[in-house]
Amino acid sequence: MKSSDKPTTQLCTHDTESITVRGADLVNDLIGELTFTEMTYFTITGRRPTRAQTRILDAVLVTLMEHGLTPSAIATRMIYGSTPESLQAAVSAGLLAVGSVFVGTMEGCAALIERILAAPDRQAAARDIADEYRSERRAIPGFGHHMHKPDDPRTPKLFAIAEAEGVPGMHIDALRTLSAAVDARFGKHLTINATGAIGALLGEIGIPAGVMRGVAVISRSAGLVAHIAEEQRSPSMRYMWDVVEEAVPYVEGTGAGE
Amino acid sequence: MKSSDKPTTQLCTHDTESITVRGADLVNDLIGELTFTEMTYFTITGRRPTRAQTRILDAVLVTLMEHGLTPSAIATRMIYGSTPESLQAAVSAGLLAVGSVFVGTMEGCAALIERILAAPDRQAAARDIADEYRSERRAIPGFGHHMHKPDDPRTPKLFAIAEAEGVPGMHIDALRTLSAAVDARFGKHLTINATGAIGALLGEIGIPAGVMRGVAVISRSAGLVAHIAEEQRSPSMRYMWDVVEEAVPYVEGTGAGE
Amino acid sequence: MKSSDKPTTQLCTHDTESITVRGADLVNDLIGELTFTEMTYFTITGRRPTRAQTRILDAVLVTLMEHGLTPSAIATRMIYGSTPESLQAAVSAGLLAVGSVFVGTMEGCAALIERILAAPDRQAAARDIADEYRSERRAIPGFGHHMHKPDDPRTPKLFAIAEAEGVPGMHIDALRTLSAAVDARFGKHLTINATGAIGALLGEIGIPAGVMRGVAVISRSAGLVAHIAEEQRSPSMRYMWDVVEEAVPYVEGTGAGE
Amino acid sequence: MKSSDKPTTQLCTHDTESITVRGADLVNDLIGELTFTEMTYFTITGRRPTRAQTRILDAVLVTLMEHGLTPSAIATRMIYGSTPESLQAAVSAGLLAVGSVFVGTMEGCAALIERILAAPDRQAAARDIADEYRSERRAIPGFGHHMHKPDDPRTPKLFAIAEAEGVPGMHIDALRTLSAAVDARFGKHLTINATGAIGALLGEIGIPAGVMRGVAVISRSAGLVAHIAEEQRSPSMRYMWDVVEEAVPYVEGTGAGE
Repeated sequence: MKSSDKPTTQLCTHDTESITVRGADLVNDLIGELTFTEMTYFTITGRRPTRAQTRILDAVLVTLMEHGLTPSAIATRMIYGSTPESLQAAVSAGLLAVGSVFVGTMEGCAALIERILAAPDRQAAARDIADEYRSERRAIPGFGHHMHKPDDPRTPKLFAIAEAEGVPGMHIDALRTLSAAVDARFGKHLTINATGAIGALLGEIGIPAGVMRGVAVISRSAGLVAHIAEEQRSPSMRYMWDVVEEAVPYVEGTGAGE
Repeated sequence: MKSSDKPTTQLCTHDTESITVRGADLVNDLIGELTFTEMTYFTITGRRPTRAQTRILDAVLVTLMEHGLTPSAIATRMIYGSTPESLQAAVSAGLLAVGSVFVGTMEGCAALIERILAAPDRQAAARDIADEYRSERRAIPGFGHHMHKPDDPRTPKLFAIAEAEGVPGMHIDALRTLSAAVDARFGKHLTINATGAIGALLGEIGIPAGVMRGVAVISRSAGLVAHIAEEQRSPSMRYMWDVVEEAVPYVEGTGAGE
Repeated sequence: MKSSDKPTTQLCTHDTESITVRGADLVNDLIGELTFTEMTYFTITGRRPTRAQTRILDAVLVTLMEHGLTPSAIATRMIYGSTPESLQAAVSAGLLAVGSVFVGTMEGCAALIERILAAPDRQAAARDIADEYRSERRAIPGFGHHMHKPDDPRTPKLFAIAEAEGVPGMHIDALRTLSAAVDARFGKHLTINATGAIGALLGEIGIPAGVMRGVAVISRSAGLVAHIAEEQRSPSMRYMWDVVEEAVPYVEGTGAGE
Repeated sequence: MKSSDKPTTQLCTHDTESITVRGADLVNDLIGELTFTEMTYFTITGRRPTRAQTRILDAVLVTLMEHGLTPSAIATRMIYGSTPESLQAAVSAGLLAVGSVFVGTMEGCAALIERILAAPDRQAAARDIADEYRSERRAIPGFGHHMHKPDDPRTPKLFAIAEAEGVPGMHIDALRTLSAAVDARFGKHLTINATGAIGALLGEIGIPAGVMRGVAVISRSAGLVAHIAEEQRSPSMRYMWDVVEEAVPYVEGTGAGE
């Protein structure tokens, strides 16, 4: 590796008297001056967010924080009850659930949006995508919801906030174009779900697709801390454990995939 | 377990048309209405924060987000480079570092503050604490810093924000009382460090000591996402790996604790 | 740091043609020559195990591998169902449960054994310990079991294996001395549980108390892989999720530690 | 879900007097009777392993245990130094590195082997695979090694053990067929690396491709415990941290993916 190839970091440095984050003095310029959401945007992108970008990122972070006793929350409570001296381990366990099944669709939807935006004919690109998923009988990332029908109630609210703030709107337009093509091709209405809408909104404010899942991780970390706080007030882990043990009984057998 | 002992949750419920968090309608009352920081306070405590509480929680979250290539950030980068398909695993790995050595002192300091607040004579309680730690030659949680000398620059800023917002101030007063007793007993000035100050500030806004570490986890999750975003732009993991391998050479031997 | 203080590693080195672990050639001396259990002992301690040490370590590893739908296994299944592309994340989540509540007692028991062994009068030391825990009404690590009564069936088997192999027996003797003192002081029989017995056995074979929890981690990692393999054959995560959601209903309220 | 669809588990049940794993009595049939490796095979597959299967699984587990200061080991040491009260968190952090980059190739190679075995003309299938990867300029899972050249020394040893034990040999044959096709198509020799060989060996003993990564996780868990034991004897985390901080300097800039 040549000297010029040596990696550097642009995030933070510190000496005995000060801490510098992204070129700004932490104590004088950031603490007390920025909200958490502004600081998050600034640290990730290196740019101070506009008011609109902050409002949209706040809306996304609020949307994803809490959804009840999800697998993520159950994992956090199981670990917290086993190792209460290590709160961070309980949060970490739950965050591991922010994977392909529940949240990864956000990036998949963002990739479809980027494909449409890059195409010379966006309508045609949207139709092509709808055709591909239909013929392969695959779920389209960002569309459909097992519970919220006919429409995910979060989606119109998220779009309304973005539009009230006057974002460019290209990502949202592309997603709506895709939605129309999908409904036409599938012969029925498939809701744009919250992760789909969020893929569009985060695109509008310049968050790269590869980082979007991180926004969900940040938001969920707060939700999981709330689950731990509730577990401290009124423990439920041992009850959940009993309930699972009773619900999934032991049977003899040598199931091994044969 | 009697039926009346069955655990419940007060966090979230949902049906086909709506999601309710802490008694509020997510779509109509929370998304677009609350910032991330307000929503975090609301979800954890069940109470809408005052402006002062929000400002203080924002200040704390901004303070802890980013401190360069810490063990936490190194762990995140090692895992991200090994499994880039699983961004959440990289964040989880780094969050596991939010343990006793670097952040747990926050809770320890909060416990000392609570002990002082509960005492009939707070000056005497502070002197007792200083005596105990001095005679046992133990580090006092929330005091001293290996790098920031003579004073941690974050502490006066955090106190100033809290006081400008007009908090009750009892936790901060107790910490200052302890600080005076510590300096007198140790015969030299020990800085109140940022985790100490944060232990007092979070006490002022009603965050229980057992949840404080969770606030650090939330803040660090955003910092670690920024490290991953930087690793995506300019990877450094393999270089760090080379540097570590070269710095810690192999030698033969059977070190085994005997 | 002086040059002489630079840390080194005694574990492994490699070049283009060979890999050396603990001074031995991996390909020629270890693969195909050592069992997993022998290699584990060798890598951790730097010493080739005797036949007796191997047998005892195998017995311990077999004992701890699998105990059904524990919090650890539930966490693993929750994460696996959320991110099946990341099997290692599911195992990691479950291993985080190997903490103070279920397994940490092993180290606590080992510490009591070491205290007895270091005392001039072991009987007296055992009585002192029993008195302390009794008067503080604390659970004695390694004693009692919420389910296995009157005796944990694993304990006599583990002792029998160790004794058949002709271990020195000092740790086991100390634990039995403690057991007699405990029963006398508490006025009833408290079983030595499996983690207590394992604390003694691992002491007999020279595993430091600070590493014992790691033996449980190794063993559980295999059990958790078996849970994932079962989840692949017959998924149960969504059913468990439904069962938990139904068992722990939402109620309104602002429980917040007041 | 109909009653008949309710999931069950075949792994473990227990009552006050006994623990049953896979239909066998833990105390009487397994502890002291099976090695860790036999117990692992039994718990995962439901079948007692033959001597050959045990020998091969042991060889695989020994091969993957330890490879020095890898990203996995660095992550483990970073977390252990930050939270020494939580050994399991340090192991979990390191195991998260057992992902697509370093070990996932094992499953990819196993999938290619299965594709060859399922083809009517295995030579042709191998040539097709070599053509595909060559034309797409992709790395072939299980082939090549950045350090071990011209051949990974572990591969011939692993094949020799399997053949000495008299395995059916179909998976190994298929991998050799692929190797010949790869060398012909690429016009140079690419070594079958250890993860490729292991993909074939685990196929020979009936471990499903979807579980293979779990075998690596089990093996690495022991290696990571050895790193923690070394960190306890001679801490190196803070030195590694210093070295990384110095090697990757801070520069101002707003790199953000533009």
